[in-house]
Amino acid sequence: MFRNQLPHYEILSGEAMEVLDSGWRRIVSEIGVEFMSDRALELFRAAGQKVEDNNVRFDPDFLLAQVAKAPREFGVQARNPANNVHIGGDHMVFGGVYGPPFVREGEARRDGSMADFENFARLAQSFSALDTAGGVMCEPNDAPLDSRHLDMTYALQTLTDKFYMGNVVSAVNAADTIRMTEILFGGREAIERTPATISLINCNSPLRWDDRMLEAQFEYSGANQPVVLTPFLLMGAMSPVSIPAALAQQMAEALTGIALSQLIRPGAPVVFGSFLSNIDMRSGSPCFGTPESAVGLLATGQIARRFGLPVRSGGGLTSSQTPDAQAAYEGLMTMLPAFLAGINWVMHSAGWLEGGLVASYEKFVIDVQVLEMLQQEFRPLEVTEESLAFDAHTEVGHGGHFLGAAHTLERFRTCFYRPFLSSSDNYERWTRDGARDAATRAGEIARTKLEEYEQPPLDDAIREELAEYVTRRRRELGD
Amino acid sequence: MFRNQLPHYEILSGEAMEVLDSGWRRIVSEIGVEFMSDRALELFRAAGQKVEDNNVRFDPDFLLAQVAKAPREFGVQARNPANNVHIGGDHMVFGGVYGPPFVREGEARRDGSMADFENFARLAQSFSALDTAGGVMCEPNDAPLDSRHLDMTYALQTLTDKFYMGNVVSAVNAADTIRMTEILFGGREAIERTPATISLINCNSPLRWDDRMLEAQFEYSGANQPVVLTPFLLMGAMSPVSIPAALAQQMAEALTGIALSQLIRPGAPVVFGSFLSNIDMRSGSPCFGTPESAVGLLATGQIARRFGLPVRSGGGLTSSQTPDAQAAYEGLMTMLPAFLAGINWVMHSAGWLEGGLVASYEKFVIDVQVLEMLQQEFRPLEVTEESLAFDAHTEVGHGGHFLGAAHTLERFRTCFYRPFLSSSDNYERWTRDGARDAATRAGEIARTKLEEYEQPPLDDAIREELAEYVTRRRRELGD
Repeated sequence: MFRNQLPHYEILSGEAMEVLDSGWRRIVSEIGVEFMSDRALELFRAAGQKVEDNNVRFDPDFLLAQVAKAPREFGVQARNPANNVHIGGDHMVFGGVYGPPFVREGEARRDGSMADFENFARLAQSFSALDTAGGVMCEPNDAPLDSRHLDMTYALQTLTDKFYMGNVVSAVNAADTIRMTEILFGGREAIERTPATISLINCNSPLRWDDRMLEAQFEYSGANQPVVLTPFLLMGAMSPVSIPAALAQQMAEALTGIALSQLIRPGAPVVFGSFLSNIDMRSGSPCFGTPESAVGLLATGQIARRFGLPVRSGGGLTSSQTPDAQAAYEGLMTMLPAFLAGINWVMHSAGWLEGGLVASYEKFVIDVQVLEMLQQEFRPLEVTEESLAFDAHTEVGHGGHFLGAAHTLERFRTCFYRPFLSSSDNYERWTRDGARDAATRAGEIARTKLEEYEQPPLDDAIREELAEYVTRRRRELGD
Repeated sequence: MFRNQLPHYEILSGEAMEVLDSGWRRIVSEIGVEFMSDRALELFRAAGQKVEDNNVRFDPDFLLAQVAKAPREFGVQARNPANNVHIGGDHMVFGGVYGPPFVREGEARRDGSMADFENFARLAQSFSALDTAGGVMCEPNDAPLDSRHLDMTYALQTLTDKFYMGNVVSAVNAADTIRMTEILFGGREAIERTPATISLINCNSPLRWDDRMLEAQFEYSGANQPVVLTPFLLMGAMSPVSIPAALAQQMAEALTGIALSQLIRPGAPVVFGSFLSNIDMRSGSPCFGTPESAVGLLATGQIARRFGLPVRSGGGLTSSQTPDAQAAYEGLMTMLPAFLAGINWVMHSAGWLEGGLVASYEKFVIDVQVLEMLQQEFRPLEVTEESLAFDAHTEVGHGGHFLGAAHTLERFRTCFYRPFLSSSDNYERWTRDGARDAATRAGEIARTKLEEYEQPPLDDAIREELAEYVTRRRRELGD
């Protein structure tokens, strides 16, 4: 897996960090955070925090004491051990887009289907730059609603041999995900020892954690499966329009959610989540890849490290409706800061389009291309005497070229990253080949990858047990 | 003008810098650098360097002593003082694409013309994110060859009131540019006191400075006009395939060129130039926006600062044939590192397409959009008690929204950068408006800007004198 070994890019001064620190402390202690769960409220009350209706006012130092129980980094196992990942430190883990109801393929925009979901799972399996397909690459609208989580989990388990995300729609769905994971990995103990899922717990920002997400959190943290406590902040709507205010709110929300996991199970793995952008103040539409979101992202990495926590952000976010130049520059305006900020778990790394409403086949491939380039860029540059290639200079001398130099011939296959999507063909050749733009070529690559896809092997008995579980539970759930 | 007030992103350790240092020292002293100019050779010989045929072997410390005479930063005046720029320190100056023989507009790719050249000058004048149109936004192939430089300079002087680049094709062209600049700014003394042009002197890499460029350098440095000494390195062709080797070569070439300027006129303003990317080892085609070029760029900023020199790179470079997703991600893969590296003078900031063979109207607008976003991003984040907006949190509380909060209403016009090209329209609205992608919208914006363009006022007497100069010199040059 990829390790980001270039330096962190940190933009907050010590003084700025102190101000932000005073900000979240004041929010949690004076305003408080709402938890729409009696179990959560009871835990906080028992721990001595001020509970009034659903609101909890915290002693900030109590929160820090809870946060300190969380591991700084942790492993997540995949059914193929070669695909195990590590979350934290200088590791970066990348997953596909999460949550879109719609799919775009070429010029067609349609409801996402189970076939699309499976295709995105296959694509994620096909690209080594991705550590996981994610969890809900698109909503499979044609699958029965109450048992859909079973179909998605089964697809992720059988079509990929990478780790996968847990369903968080309800406690029931979470419990089913955990049970299916136990089947795949050989029992509860195996996945409690090393987690095999990671789950996204979004805050209903500002300052409220909702019941269904909290129920899922109880299930996952209870089973020692990592949860990503993510304030959902579009500045101007869910937070004030000032970046520092949004950062302080993000700290208040993430730290309180993380503290809950530590009360549920001390030492449970957690991730400091961030989904931070802004709305267009004229239309109210969410905007992505904005300068403000990039600044927020850079600051977030630094903030999470201050608490000794792994950190999550988005990847190739964009508002664009189509996989065009805007989709690419907005995507990179998020993805490159994620590398600079030392983000550990990058969701929406491939396929995100139209503000997250659409999973795009073409954008998926474009994003993987960009991701591969950045994974190449953020490696340490080895500067040694040998790397100076003085002999090559002696051989070529003045005004010559290095194409045939011994140093070049020894290295030409591996010296530079070779893109699979980008074209540097000359105009004549490009025209002869159909004058296809990047989106067109990306669509062709997606189709080829799907044709060439081979399902990773899985023990028949396990597959049958999973299928039986899906069938039985679907019946029980009335679908 | 824009100041980049975020930290520099530095990836070279002290040890790495020492190795690179040993690299350029060995190249200049053991292999040497060729200067295809008797005047240059004579200056180096007189200064005690080892000259043999056209090759000069240098004492590295002699080079450093010359480099130390160069100003760390300097101003360049524009005929509208509001457009004066400062090159060095935390200032960043942005110019349009330089050199393409072809133009792309929509689906049409054609020879560049004088009309195109003038259009790009008008576009550069229209966007405040650009400090200059540049010098040769496209080659005006329909203008007479020997006097073309007069037409281009006249267009830059009259269609924009920003500074402009000097023609470097020959000593004659350079002298004409300087003479026309004297006319515009009121005489030689005025432009020697504060330069009014900047000129690109490319190295014929590896390790050779050619006669025509050197002749232009003599003219410009002699007149105290800044020159940008730029190694032209496509790794694999003009330099070894190893990044450290290319960096050492870049130092050897840039420092020897800079030393020459200091011998021509001690204290003459210079810029440490960098044009560093790689070829596709399968086809030999130049590639841009590559991971290797980004790493080289980050290192280059750090290296130039070590010598106390302003530094130049490219901006939105791409190999793409069309203003598509590839053009956008490759462009940003160069432009964002330019900001991180603290580059002072960013050439090719708008309009570059197809490896620099094409100036694109659409790409010009896309690049300006990206540039504006980055100029917004690389501003210091002010984190103060007030910026925490605690009152807004008190007002909105839990689970509400900030759209109507007093804090929001006071700031909604200016709190976020408002893009002019990017769309966050919902799908229905976007479809109703014609489902135009970013390139299509960019083309429309270019046309609107050209329709709305107003020529900046210029004293009639000066304009006449410039026109007379062009007419007389064209006759003398036999065109």
